[in-house]
Amino acid sequence: MPRIAVVGAGYWGPNLVRNFQGHKDCTELWVCDQSKARLDQMRTRFPGLKYTESYDEVLKSNVDGVVLATPVSTHYELARRALERGKHVFVEKPLASSAEHAKDLVSRAEAAKRTLMVGHTFLYSPPVLKVKDLIAKGELGRIFFVTTMRVNLGLHQKDVSVIWDLAPHDFSILFYWLGERPSVITATGKAFVVSGIHDVAFISAEFPSGTIAHLEVSWLAPSKLRRTAIVGDKKMAVYDDTEAIEKVKIFDRGVDFKDPETFGEFQLSYRTGDIWSPKLAQSEPLALEAGDFLKAISDGTTPKSDGLMGLRVVEALAAAQKSLEQGGVPIKL
Amino acid sequence: MPRIAVVGAGYWGPNLVRNFQGHKDCTELWVCDQSKARLDQMRTRFPGLKYTESYDEVLKSNVDGVVLATPVSTHYELARRALERGKHVFVEKPLASSAEHAKDLVSRAEAAKRTLMVGHTFLYSPPVLKVKDLIAKGELGRIFFVTTMRVNLGLHQKDVSVIWDLAPHDFSILFYWLGERPSVITATGKAFVVSGIHDVAFISAEFPSGTIAHLEVSWLAPSKLRRTAIVGDKKMAVYDDTEAIEKVKIFDRGVDFKDPETFGEFQLSYRTGDIWSPKLAQSEPLALEAGDFLKAISDGTTPKSDGLMGLRVVEALAAAQKSLEQGGVPIKL
Amino acid sequence: MPRIAVVGAGYWGPNLVRNFQGHKDCTELWVCDQSKARLDQMRTRFPGLKYTESYDEVLKSNVDGVVLATPVSTHYELARRALERGKHVFVEKPLASSAEHAKDLVSRAEAAKRTLMVGHTFLYSPPVLKVKDLIAKGELGRIFFVTTMRVNLGLHQKDVSVIWDLAPHDFSILFYWLGERPSVITATGKAFVVSGIHDVAFISAEFPSGTIAHLEVSWLAPSKLRRTAIVGDKKMAVYDDTEAIEKVKIFDRGVDFKDPETFGEFQLSYRTGDIWSPKLAQSEPLALEAGDFLKAISDGTTPKSDGLMGLRVVEALAAAQKSLEQGGVPIKL
Amino acid sequence: MPRIAVVGAGYWGPNLVRNFQGHKDCTELWVCDQSKARLDQMRTRFPGLKYTESYDEVLKSNVDGVVLATPVSTHYELARRALERGKHVFVEKPLASSAEHAKDLVSRAEAAKRTLMVGHTFLYSPPVLKVKDLIAKGELGRIFFVTTMRVNLGLHQKDVSVIWDLAPHDFSILFYWLGERPSVITATGKAFVVSGIHDVAFISAEFPSGTIAHLEVSWLAPSKLRRTAIVGDKKMAVYDDTEAIEKVKIFDRGVDFKDPETFGEFQLSYRTGDIWSPKLAQSEPLALEAGDFLKAISDGTTPKSDGLMGLRVVEALAAAQKSLEQGGVPIKL
Repeated sequence: MPRIAVVGAGYWGPNLVRNFQGHKDCTELWVCDQSKARLDQMRTRFPGLKYTESYDEVLKSNVDGVVLATPVSTHYELARRALERGKHVFVEKPLASSAEHAKDLVSRAEAAKRTLMVGHTFLYSPPVLKVKDLIAKGELGRIFFVTTMRVNLGLHQKDVSVIWDLAPHDFSILFYWLGERPSVITATGKAFVVSGIHDVAFISAEFPSGTIAHLEVSWLAPSKLRRTAIVGDKKMAVYDDTEAIEKVKIFDRGVDFKDPETFGEFQLSYRTGDIWSPKLAQSEPLALEAGDFLKAISDGTTPKSDGLMGLRVVEALAAAQKSLEQGGVPIKL
Repeated sequence: MPRIAVVGAGYWGPNLVRNFQGHKDCTELWVCDQSKARLDQMRTRFPGLKYTESYDEVLKSNVDGVVLATPVSTHYELARRALERGKHVFVEKPLASSAEHAKDLVSRAEAAKRTLMVGHTFLYSPPVLKVKDLIAKGELGRIFFVTTMRVNLGLHQKDVSVIWDLAPHDFSILFYWLGERPSVITATGKAFVVSGIHDVAFISAEFPSGTIAHLEVSWLAPSKLRRTAIVGDKKMAVYDDTEAIEKVKIFDRGVDFKDPETFGEFQLSYRTGDIWSPKLAQSEPLALEAGDFLKAISDGTTPKSDGLMGLRVVEALAAAQKSLEQGGVPIKL
Repeated sequence: MPRIAVVGAGYWGPNLVRNFQGHKDCTELWVCDQSKARLDQMRTRFPGLKYTESYDEVLKSNVDGVVLATPVSTHYELARRALERGKHVFVEKPLASSAEHAKDLVSRAEAAKRTLMVGHTFLYSPPVLKVKDLIAKGELGRIFFVTTMRVNLGLHQKDVSVIWDLAPHDFSILFYWLGERPSVITATGKAFVVSGIHDVAFISAEFPSGTIAHLEVSWLAPSKLRRTAIVGDKKMAVYDDTEAIEKVKIFDRGVDFKDPETFGEFQLSYRTGDIWSPKLAQSEPLALEAGDFLKAISDGTTPKSDGLMGLRVVEALAAAQKSLEQGGVPIKL
Repeated sequence: MPRIAVVGAGYWGPNLVRNFQGHKDCTELWVCDQSKARLDQMRTRFPGLKYTESYDEVLKSNVDGVVLATPVSTHYELARRALERGKHVFVEKPLASSAEHAKDLVSRAEAAKRTLMVGHTFLYSPPVLKVKDLIAKGELGRIFFVTTMRVNLGLHQKDVSVIWDLAPHDFSILFYWLGERPSVITATGKAFVVSGIHDVAFISAEFPSGTIAHLEVSWLAPSKLRRTAIVGDKKMAVYDDTEAIEKVKIFDRGVDFKDPETFGEFQLSYRTGDIWSPKLAQSEPLALEAGDFLKAISDGTTPKSDGLMGLRVVEALAAAQKSLEQGGVPIKL
């Protein structure tokens, strides 16, 4: 049964600590942060854990898995060192700040036969799982396209664009659902508030199967939107994370081709049918995610959100950012 | 007081007939269509108008203005001939099927000192007028960007893409609100149902002032969306045409820059305030549009939706279509 | 094939004329109104019908069915005279302004073997039919209760309370769904704007089966609500007529009783499952209603919204009004 | 600076502990519960507080204020004893299970010159405060009526009806807004799931000023509704607690009387104007409530939700329950 160290106790770290602490398979839990003040806060809230200001101490310990909730710019260095010490590594999304670094981590984990997992939490959320299930069972048919909006008046990041901040969610969901990686990415957008930091972006992606996707991400929007439409040739679905109850709706709608009775013109007809909102599981995504890491360490299984997923997401982010900076030129992957 | 002939009594023509017939300034109204059956239908519904199957007869008559509600491919030829006979011309949107034809019509109308008007009806709709007013008065501040969605499970056109079918609405609204034309247009999308006829498109536009815009148009979507967000540096607005009452909402939200007290870092703060949904006029856009054409004929005034607006929209459509067909390459205008 | 006369060409009459005119089984259609001006308007809109200012002429003619769209206060007199002349009679809702008059009309129609039908149009509307179907098939289980709201800033009637104006809709729907009449009715409310004319009312009804119902009707409300909840012991449904698409939703929710493992305490558990919005037919209720009257005349069948339904609605309205005027005292029927 | 003891650490108690603990004016905090297991749980979560299983110990201590979060049936006894020991008392809603007990507590607190406060938390919630402000400033005009719905598939109480469970919220809000107590109450409803425990109720209340109110409370409803409409003769408002952002909306709508130009008929006209959703404060109601109790103890001020408010709510609950049990007969207060 694994011993875990959560590194970084800032905004997101405490959520990871809470979930690993609560998991029956986690025998020992460390919290590591450079700030003594933060450690003290954590100690009050979670008495009974191990606390240290030294990452080296974590690496030298008998901890099995390291969970990195530190700034993106530190991911590569910290993860590499942990892999070198034979630790299994969980990195918060995105995996790294460049495709090269992400690729290097994937190779190192493979070589070291250690689990590399990335914190794409949405892959464990009930509505995302439900849509995956619908697609896998063929209920929606062949997927024509997916559009997604993730916008609201949100916190500007200081060092990365809205693409690196918000699009990791949508790319990971897309790649999970579609089971393929994009071949071309195009992005437009702009930096309105802070020079050089794009706060609005529109991203198009094309996949080898013919499916296309479109992402809108923004820190500047009048109201919060978290809406994804999935259009298949049989049915269509909407996943709206701002809805309290009906987060996933399946529309029995589509275009039918009728056999032309006479030679010549094709015949289209539109089908509109029932709308169905399935009940979703009540499970907490972070708890499932923590469990997936613990299981990977114990059994050697591949976690759903593995290093390869993390790498693909980083490649897509880098391509989108590049297209954006070149005025919307399509970038091949 | 003008005499008017509506040419084309198919899907849209009857709406124009109804509105010109009902207008106090329209002394005489003709209806022209090649199909005798359609004319008979119209005659039953609107007794007391003049009916003819011959466009020549219209051109030879003392009719002052010709209103073309015929297929796009016929616009150029029919409008050119009417201008040659000294008629004022109203053309349903889009003005023509190529920028060259649109430009030629604008030149001819200028040379002939005749009104050339295009049926961009949204320029006469109360919510669009209200947003124009908000922008003109500076209530929203400098406009950062506009995003718009016009999607649902809609009728496929046989000969034109979804861009030519739906984007005329959004481009005309945008150009009217912003008072400028785009410098670059990028579009991605795909033809899923009928080969060669794109049924989904994502269009980005950049304007000289720095404002950007993004349009999503689709005939394949699970539910009807008609939503436009206008983000300014002072306030933000949403225009949602599917709302029964609150079609326009103004959000007193934005990003404020605080004077840094110390040298160095900028300071951002987020402002969220009241939301306000102004009462809109109840006027029928088509009636205002018909009146604008009649007034232009009588007084020589320039209609709001003039030939130049029509030309700019056609240029934008052509650029978007070109980018789409070239895989998303940015097109300069 | 029946000859029909629509009497009263005010607010609602023209809708009836349009639907009878369009029906294939209506061979001849008369329009009768005391106002020559109104008849002239109708003549322009519907050329080819018979027009008269004299109700006597209608009664003397070979017209088979008379459709009364006149003020409620005239219903009894006009309907009685038509039945005396052997005409079939369709009366707009409510059937009469007192239970006595309604009862008398029902008796006379029975004695004369003529159809007496009442214009409770909602009994022909697709969402109401769908809910009836759900109840009839037992999908909702035993019906615990029904609550309904019909409110907005609406036109005050000059001579009748909001109960007589709006509650006929809800009572007719309720009686159709439940297949029974109430045993007790209680109502509270008040006249705020015009003395003596109640503009807000809250009505409770109890049925012999144990089902209860509650109606809120108001001319004074900030926004339009047309919402009915039907709670059964198996499932629950919501019928919301202000929704464009999902007018009916079925919630797989309820309370389950578990067999107590030990003697003693009952065990309740709550079930929340899928939500399902069935596709509804697109038929126009008024066309179905007109067809039902024409069929009743031709075949002698009983229309769905027959005189008995009309009588029960009037009895309920009278009881509610009485309770209201007595400060909410329960009235037995 | 007051010393406080929270008594009862079940469902609600921990929320009170959290808020008193976090308040700067609370010098010492005790937690008292009969269950050692519960105390142990609390001790882990809130280290550093005083814990006891004995209410007597609390009463004998130098604690200034006792906060009762115990079952309703125990309120009277525990509160009475605390007042006898000279403690200030805060009682969770409802104050007592009978009007007699509630009245007795009010008298005792007055005699002992001690604060008696009741936990009607909604009186401290930002949307309720905003509506109070609108009414107080006359923005809505004279209040015609208030309707409120508080329904969903909720937990059945074992010993009290839905009226005693849910209506305390609505009655306290109403009395706070209107500043008066009802003169007559009527209620209908039924016990569907557990015999004798009403799970659905419809309550009408009449106030001396002429305002009326209507409450719908239910544990059996397909979806959660928390909607209150406030209709004044100038404007109308809706308070919807299920809305994330626009919890309060003001509708500039109403009925205007026009001066009749000729003698005779009154003239009504309908006014529909802007809709406005004011920004609400972000304060946590429970923190304000805790502060109000602490301030009352320190300064001798009367808390907003005082014993008299608690008494009036209990009187209304008792009257509604009585009417319900008598089949809807109006009960005078």
